[in-house]
Amino acid sequence: MPVSIGVLRESAEGETRVALTPPVVATLVRDGLSVTVEKGAGERAGFTDAEYKDAGATLATRKATLTSQVVVAVGRPDAAATKALKEGQALLGLVEGLEVSGVHVLSLERLPRQISRAQTMDALSSQASIAGYRAAIVAATAYGRYFPMMVTAAGTAKPASVLVLGAGVAGLQAIATARRLGARVSGYDVRPAAREEVTSLGASFLATTVSAVGEGGYARELTQEESAQQRAELSAAIAGFDIVITTAKVPGRKPPELVDSDTVAAMRRGSVIVDLAAGPLGGNVAGVGIDTWDLTTNGVMLIAAGDLPQQMAPAASDAYARNIAAVIAAIVSEGELAIDPTDEVVGALLGAPAAAKEEVPA
Amino acid sequence: MPVSIGVLRESAEGETRVALTPPVVATLVRDGLSVTVEKGAGERAGFTDAEYKDAGATLATRKATLTSQVVVAVGRPDAAATKALKEGQALLGLVEGLEVSGVHVLSLERLPRQISRAQTMDALSSQASIAGYRAAIVAATAYGRYFPMMVTAAGTAKPASVLVLGAGVAGLQAIATARRLGARVSGYDVRPAAREEVTSLGASFLATTVSAVGEGGYARELTQEESAQQRAELSAAIAGFDIVITTAKVPGRKPPELVDSDTVAAMRRGSVIVDLAAGPLGGNVAGVGIDTWDLTTNGVMLIAAGDLPQQMAPAASDAYARNIAAVIAAIVSEGELAIDPTDEVVGALLGAPAAAKEEVPA
Repeated sequence: MPVSIGVLRESAEGETRVALTPPVVATLVRDGLSVTVEKGAGERAGFTDAEYKDAGATLATRKATLTSQVVVAVGRPDAAATKALKEGQALLGLVEGLEVSGVHVLSLERLPRQISRAQTMDALSSQASIAGYRAAIVAATAYGRYFPMMVTAAGTAKPASVLVLGAGVAGLQAIATARRLGARVSGYDVRPAAREEVTSLGASFLATTVSAVGEGGYARELTQEESAQQRAELSAAIAGFDIVITTAKVPGRKPPELVDSDTVAAMRRGSVIVDLAAGPLGGNVAGVGIDTWDLTTNGVMLIAAGDLPQQMAPAASDAYARNIAAVIAAIVSEGELAIDPTDEVVGALLGAPAAAKEEVPA
Repeated sequence: MPVSIGVLRESAEGETRVALTPPVVATLVRDGLSVTVEKGAGERAGFTDAEYKDAGATLATRKATLTSQVVVAVGRPDAAATKALKEGQALLGLVEGLEVSGVHVLSLERLPRQISRAQTMDALSSQASIAGYRAAIVAATAYGRYFPMMVTAAGTAKPASVLVLGAGVAGLQAIATARRLGARVSGYDVRPAAREEVTSLGASFLATTVSAVGEGGYARELTQEESAQQRAELSAAIAGFDIVITTAKVPGRKPPELVDSDTVAAMRRGSVIVDLAAGPLGGNVAGVGIDTWDLTTNGVMLIAAGDLPQQMAPAASDAYARNIAAVIAAIVSEGELAIDPTDEVVGALLGAPAAAKEEVPA
């Protein structure tokens, strides 16, 4: 019997992605796996049931899909689904914190990102890349003027000035995309090592006097005093920018406030803030909502953009599916499901203490 | 008495632009003109009454504004406003076809675009430039995948393929912006001379066997047979693109249909069409709406985008205001209003037969 993989239709409202795409299903089937897809699973990401069937999958009910040896999902399945799982099955997805008795729960948030062979499995990175690209597009949509400099017969329009806070995967991608569009871009990160990455993309690095190098290149948590100083210096700088994109997301934790309400109030009419950390736990910007665009009284568009990968579900699913396929390859051996908790990558996914849980820019 | 300029608040629903911006008002005032601005005129474009006041304008009622010697607007004012105008006043704007007894109606659509000193007044161009830039941003928003090629640890995403139909100001700007974003771009225009402009932006020129060189570099109208052949060849090519942007707008006339319903039906799920010509008279794409995003049954997003300058009201107004200021400079001489119908530019604006009224890509 080939190892069976089941692709769930996502439960969460607003979740448009799907864990496996038809091209990746085709690869898995070619590799000897059996894939069952819940009917309609790819619909919101633009993939039809017919495409999955053509790729070699079996379309099935949710109940039948949930009997697969490895059930894959993007976000946490609903309670009924997890309850239906039986001893020895595996559940794989961005499901941090979920525990199901007897079930191997593999949480992609726990991936040891610094291990080289884990990089193909890095869903947080692939989704952050989408978010960063999309952040620049959203900013260009909300901003009432050109990003590039425009020289015309009737005069010159100056380029937009963009500041990206946090130079992780999302931040660097936002910088690169805003630069592509012709904006004048600055980047900032508490990790001084980020300077080189920012400047290598043709952006300026906004220097403050606060440094926070942590283990493994990640940022360490700042002291209260350092945070205050960092915020004061940033606040003074932020008001001068047309666009501010914030990316300091900490999985499962309240995001740090990088832009306070006084700073928002000091910004120019027509300027735009895109907060990639915005979600139920708050965001990087004081007063930011959840999935809303709010125009402040001083005319600043404040965009809660915690859901950017969901806004680009086809690309986000393409990348996520490849990450999932890489994990599947690591837990299937010679045609059998072989989940080895002593493997440093698989063990981490299963819940061994992750190597770095500090503040990580998304 | 200095020449008085009156800036109307726009009447049309959905019109967000304003004919003069505070910086341009400041210049006119510095040049000795008196400027009256109808209260709230700049509101939807992001300019406050206070900014106009600081620039040296007088804020006034609509009635008072309408007594200015030169009344400036973006689109056609409502009937009550035109009725209030008196003998000897001038009305300046995109007001093609409007006639008001005894009033000097200066229509920017009639500008002889090929005359060098008229280029600073070219509002159709300045607005088309906005529309073209914005078209690429809208396409990137609607498209579910990346525009640029993305090489990541988990695989490579190929760049989006973009086809721009019509290589006028809007088309060239759309090409340039899609290229900036990293897409693989092709352009097409019936004028073979457009090939060089398209390729100089790093895009490919999509060749068909139909040529339509007209006077002054503008396209001549195609015969029915030529149109049919052109459409057949284009249709075959279009289905292969992820994004199609159409820009064949003819002021005041029904736009030519460049993409028929069979072609839309042949496009891939997830592809996007942005129709810059879409409006009350139709568009370049069969079945396009007015200001709507419609998902076709085969999963193509068909975007009616006739209002893109209005979506970027600050930039559109900046540019339009500079165009208006250039016209004002041409009709004010030594502190007096001096509308000279024998001047080739002013005469054309007043309604002398325009040099080129053929099909002109926006």
